[in-house]
Amino acid sequence: MCNAEIDPKTVPHMRELMAGLPTNWGKWGPDDEIGCLNYLTQAEVLRGVASIRSGKTFTLQVQMGNPKGDPVWPGRRGAQRINLMDKGDFICGNGPQTPGCHEFADDLMIMYLQGSTQYDALGHVWYDDHIYNGFDAKSTAGGMQKASVLPIAERGVVGRGILIDMARHRGKDVLDRGETFNHHDLIDAAKAQGIEIEKRDILLVRTGWIGSFYRRDPAEFYTDFVEPGLTFSRELVDWFKEMEIPNLVTDTIANEVTLEPETGVMIPLHCALMRNLGVAFTEIAALDALAADCAQDAQWSFLYTAAPLKVVNGSGAPVNPLVIK
Amino acid sequence: MCNAEIDPKTVPHMRELMAGLPTNWGKWGPDDEIGCLNYLTQAEVLRGVASIRSGKTFTLQVQMGNPKGDPVWPGRRGAQRINLMDKGDFICGNGPQTPGCHEFADDLMIMYLQGSTQYDALGHVWYDDHIYNGFDAKSTAGGMQKASVLPIAERGVVGRGILIDMARHRGKDVLDRGETFNHHDLIDAAKAQGIEIEKRDILLVRTGWIGSFYRRDPAEFYTDFVEPGLTFSRELVDWFKEMEIPNLVTDTIANEVTLEPETGVMIPLHCALMRNLGVAFTEIAALDALAADCAQDAQWSFLYTAAPLKVVNGSGAPVNPLVIK
Amino acid sequence: MCNAEIDPKTVPHMRELMAGLPTNWGKWGPDDEIGCLNYLTQAEVLRGVASIRSGKTFTLQVQMGNPKGDPVWPGRRGAQRINLMDKGDFICGNGPQTPGCHEFADDLMIMYLQGSTQYDALGHVWYDDHIYNGFDAKSTAGGMQKASVLPIAERGVVGRGILIDMARHRGKDVLDRGETFNHHDLIDAAKAQGIEIEKRDILLVRTGWIGSFYRRDPAEFYTDFVEPGLTFSRELVDWFKEMEIPNLVTDTIANEVTLEPETGVMIPLHCALMRNLGVAFTEIAALDALAADCAQDAQWSFLYTAAPLKVVNGSGAPVNPLVIK
Amino acid sequence: MCNAEIDPKTVPHMRELMAGLPTNWGKWGPDDEIGCLNYLTQAEVLRGVASIRSGKTFTLQVQMGNPKGDPVWPGRRGAQRINLMDKGDFICGNGPQTPGCHEFADDLMIMYLQGSTQYDALGHVWYDDHIYNGFDAKSTAGGMQKASVLPIAERGVVGRGILIDMARHRGKDVLDRGETFNHHDLIDAAKAQGIEIEKRDILLVRTGWIGSFYRRDPAEFYTDFVEPGLTFSRELVDWFKEMEIPNLVTDTIANEVTLEPETGVMIPLHCALMRNLGVAFTEIAALDALAADCAQDAQWSFLYTAAPLKVVNGSGAPVNPLVIK
Repeated sequence: MCNAEIDPKTVPHMRELMAGLPTNWGKWGPDDEIGCLNYLTQAEVLRGVASIRSGKTFTLQVQMGNPKGDPVWPGRRGAQRINLMDKGDFICGNGPQTPGCHEFADDLMIMYLQGSTQYDALGHVWYDDHIYNGFDAKSTAGGMQKASVLPIAERGVVGRGILIDMARHRGKDVLDRGETFNHHDLIDAAKAQGIEIEKRDILLVRTGWIGSFYRRDPAEFYTDFVEPGLTFSRELVDWFKEMEIPNLVTDTIANEVTLEPETGVMIPLHCALMRNLGVAFTEIAALDALAADCAQDAQWSFLYTAAPLKVVNGSGAPVNPLVIK
Repeated sequence: MCNAEIDPKTVPHMRELMAGLPTNWGKWGPDDEIGCLNYLTQAEVLRGVASIRSGKTFTLQVQMGNPKGDPVWPGRRGAQRINLMDKGDFICGNGPQTPGCHEFADDLMIMYLQGSTQYDALGHVWYDDHIYNGFDAKSTAGGMQKASVLPIAERGVVGRGILIDMARHRGKDVLDRGETFNHHDLIDAAKAQGIEIEKRDILLVRTGWIGSFYRRDPAEFYTDFVEPGLTFSRELVDWFKEMEIPNLVTDTIANEVTLEPETGVMIPLHCALMRNLGVAFTEIAALDALAADCAQDAQWSFLYTAAPLKVVNGSGAPVNPLVIK
Repeated sequence: MCNAEIDPKTVPHMRELMAGLPTNWGKWGPDDEIGCLNYLTQAEVLRGVASIRSGKTFTLQVQMGNPKGDPVWPGRRGAQRINLMDKGDFICGNGPQTPGCHEFADDLMIMYLQGSTQYDALGHVWYDDHIYNGFDAKSTAGGMQKASVLPIAERGVVGRGILIDMARHRGKDVLDRGETFNHHDLIDAAKAQGIEIEKRDILLVRTGWIGSFYRRDPAEFYTDFVEPGLTFSRELVDWFKEMEIPNLVTDTIANEVTLEPETGVMIPLHCALMRNLGVAFTEIAALDALAADCAQDAQWSFLYTAAPLKVVNGSGAPVNPLVIK
Repeated sequence: MCNAEIDPKTVPHMRELMAGLPTNWGKWGPDDEIGCLNYLTQAEVLRGVASIRSGKTFTLQVQMGNPKGDPVWPGRRGAQRINLMDKGDFICGNGPQTPGCHEFADDLMIMYLQGSTQYDALGHVWYDDHIYNGFDAKSTAGGMQKASVLPIAERGVVGRGILIDMARHRGKDVLDRGETFNHHDLIDAAKAQGIEIEKRDILLVRTGWIGSFYRRDPAEFYTDFVEPGLTFSRELVDWFKEMEIPNLVTDTIANEVTLEPETGVMIPLHCALMRNLGVAFTEIAALDALAADCAQDAQWSFLYTAAPLKVVNGSGAPVNPLVIK
């Protein structure tokens, strides 16, 4: 995850890059833990509902515990599911004998909370000792006391979603390692798709990256690991703020280019958009089937619904978003 | 889980109780793994959408890893979330130093797949060596090769939901241990609520049981563990089949009374409705807030959406259903 | 774990209680991580060997994953062992087909490293920002970089062991909750057993407490949880230092009385003996069978051997000590 | 794990290879679960003690949770240790405030029971529906009811050990992939070392294989995974039986060559020696430091002690064997 052209000693501190940028801290009160999801009022729910036409549905989670492996950030492990009881136990006499003699399967799972399609807690990433809304970063110790994923999960996310297919827009199956795009590219791609990004739209951006994981050799996928994605600029941050984007959903693991090319800073949008503005991040989404359908029927907006698991104090939680067209 | 009034030796085998009852095996082809969710066509999605009025939303999962404990079937354990990284690590010099010096929290979770609000795989419970749609029960060994939760998660569940508040109907905060009701009671309660159960409605039935977990001492909750719930009869099974109910959602751990009172057979509806008919079961749902709102605005039907995690070979998967009114 | 007779506000800080007490920091160099185990030279090994008479052997670990539960400190969980493969899988066709068709069982375990008979790392407990030998307590973040259990495990523990049966000495099956004893009691009990505690002896002290776990109802065992055990005094600390005791092994979870009766301070001997002097602590040992044999043949000293698991950065590690008489 | 020169269709079934070979089933009664460890009588313990000379000690476990990875059989995972509490928590206010204010570190571990230096349960591997001593293989379902590692752990293993350094004998740092040797080679190597293998000796055989794991790239270690080791012959099985070898300890993951070269059968010695004769297997031992010392002082026999963890129903359990010279 290094950039050969950038001297590490010259990489600025995140606080320098963020200096003077807007925040939404306090905008929804000192106790707010859901940030821009506050924009998703009942009116926004109904606006999303109004985009439904045919009743087609799509689920956006990647599979968990896939024998081929799960796409995860280097250092994390994919989910491990383990059987606790099955027909073999009953054949061997190890199953419990219940009144009436029904039989059953049972299993458990060990998983990284950021190891599948997932909502980040707004407090998941920070700099300078404070997380979203100014809560002390010490409140993350042993579990997030503030701005955990729980309030997001309690509320759920419903609104108009719009899919921007950057890969298709650029005529590629998948964007290149480290390939970037910005809000102008999003606007242009939407226009080319025949649709306009509206205020408070939930943005789904497809790069083809996660889909490529299943076609690639894992070793190749992780070698020189740099994802394609949105790239930081002050104008982009302002655009997100003005557009009141509640939620950014992508088919990459980090929702943004791994290293900002000019400065070499790692994932600055987590800080500028999530920590400072309170934009909800949904990562590792499976967008290929939805994109293929949108390309086919030319309907790129829809009702987007998502409710991550209600994990108390979680830094994130897996989710299987559901889209209704 | 015994019934003092029933001699265990006289409890009939499940196959005797099920003899002559209808199945939907083969109805949707020999490879079908989602059963009555096939009823939820695009038309049904749109019927559900048509029930939306105000844009209010509710999430129906119980919390996971609650310090007070999670309500689980005896023998299972609640989810255990564990921090892997937080501000404490960065203060102590244990956090990774990234370009730009962002910091983050990370965690993992160990969970029973049936240990929170969850969709059962259609193959989760069986008798007589075959699971839903006639698949060999041996296919459950080491993970469900057939009728796992994965096809349900890939499809997602969307349709018109209707809430029947049996506790409120009977003037109770929570139904008693082992208290039963049947489809006539459901119909009557709906009528009293001013609504009619329609064909292909997703049934949400509230007993108050899971809500009581949080008010009770755990020892008391689990002592002489018998849940209230729907109770088996041939007429009830026929009614579910004729009504083409795709999905039964309740605020109990097993969706039905623990022991059928007449025969003493344990959880026969898992066999009659899920294994034989293919009705999807959603258990341990949190229905209290939704019910309070429905009682207040007298709107008992809504768009119900749910997408459990896409756990490969899972016997079930956690879910945070989302209701839009 | 409170003492009704002591006002919590008057409980002194550990540093006050420890003021002026001896340490062995630096005695074995600034990098030492094994403390008093340094006393166990080859000569001490041979002294232990010389105590062997009959060739009888005893293992001192409690069982792990016992269906009745494992005795653990409140808040920890006993080990959970889970099958990954067994005959049921092969019957059902889930087992791998190997050349020659052998079959096998496989399993994994989730365990607290302090959740069975175990050696504490010397850095496991501390006060005032420094662990054993003066290492910065921040070095414990994310795993012990210093004074972990690994150096103890790499070295192993071999020497003359001596069993002091305090329960038998006081004519009890098990000492009472909170019952205390000191070094004078140890000396007297040894004398009554017809043996003398020698310099550099590994001390095994039996209270009967862990054995009682298996006879008691778990709820009763944990109610008003206060263990019996050694109790703090300045003279006792001096005695351990002068006697150069390398290792204290008991059949309690904490090796000492839970609350020091005079001050109400919790587990001060972990600080005075382990953190300051570097005495190795072996907790939750199963001593009943060994004690019964010693009482029968009147041989209370023996070769003690123990080698905890080599867990990198571990705060402790399970161990099955082995005694040869 | 295939042998390019052998047609898989011609690989005989294990039962054919084992036909007519000796077993010790019933020799120590129908309930015996420890097999050849029965040979380790008190007299054998004293014979081992008699080999002690200098008081030098060695521990033989590999490290667990090593950042470089742990050597495990393909398909298993190395141990994962996770911090639950450390100084970072106390700095951030997440640590419990105890009377006297001591602080502590705590952690848990997820581990394969066969994923480190370990004793196999005698029932760990089988063919033809029966495990050691004729117990039904169905008794392995959900955990070993018979011939688990527990009885071995309860007894412990003590006797005279003898190290045969095959790598040094052949002038290599590490034996080649698939390189084999037999009992004649063991006898010759011992002779060259100036020592004789005696009846009831615990055999430690060094190949250099595990030590090479730490010098090799993991990818290279696992590519075309075939270990060196002892190879099957009827004469070798008879020799083990006549010599009453209680325990075979090696620095490979499977204690024998992965595929028997003549037939292509996988790990037949697990069946011939462990399942049929009841020889205890200790795998993944770290023998390099011990071997270097033996080569230096020319003392190749010693007291061997080992006590795996007392895991109830375990198919194996980790162990840190301890040698006293």
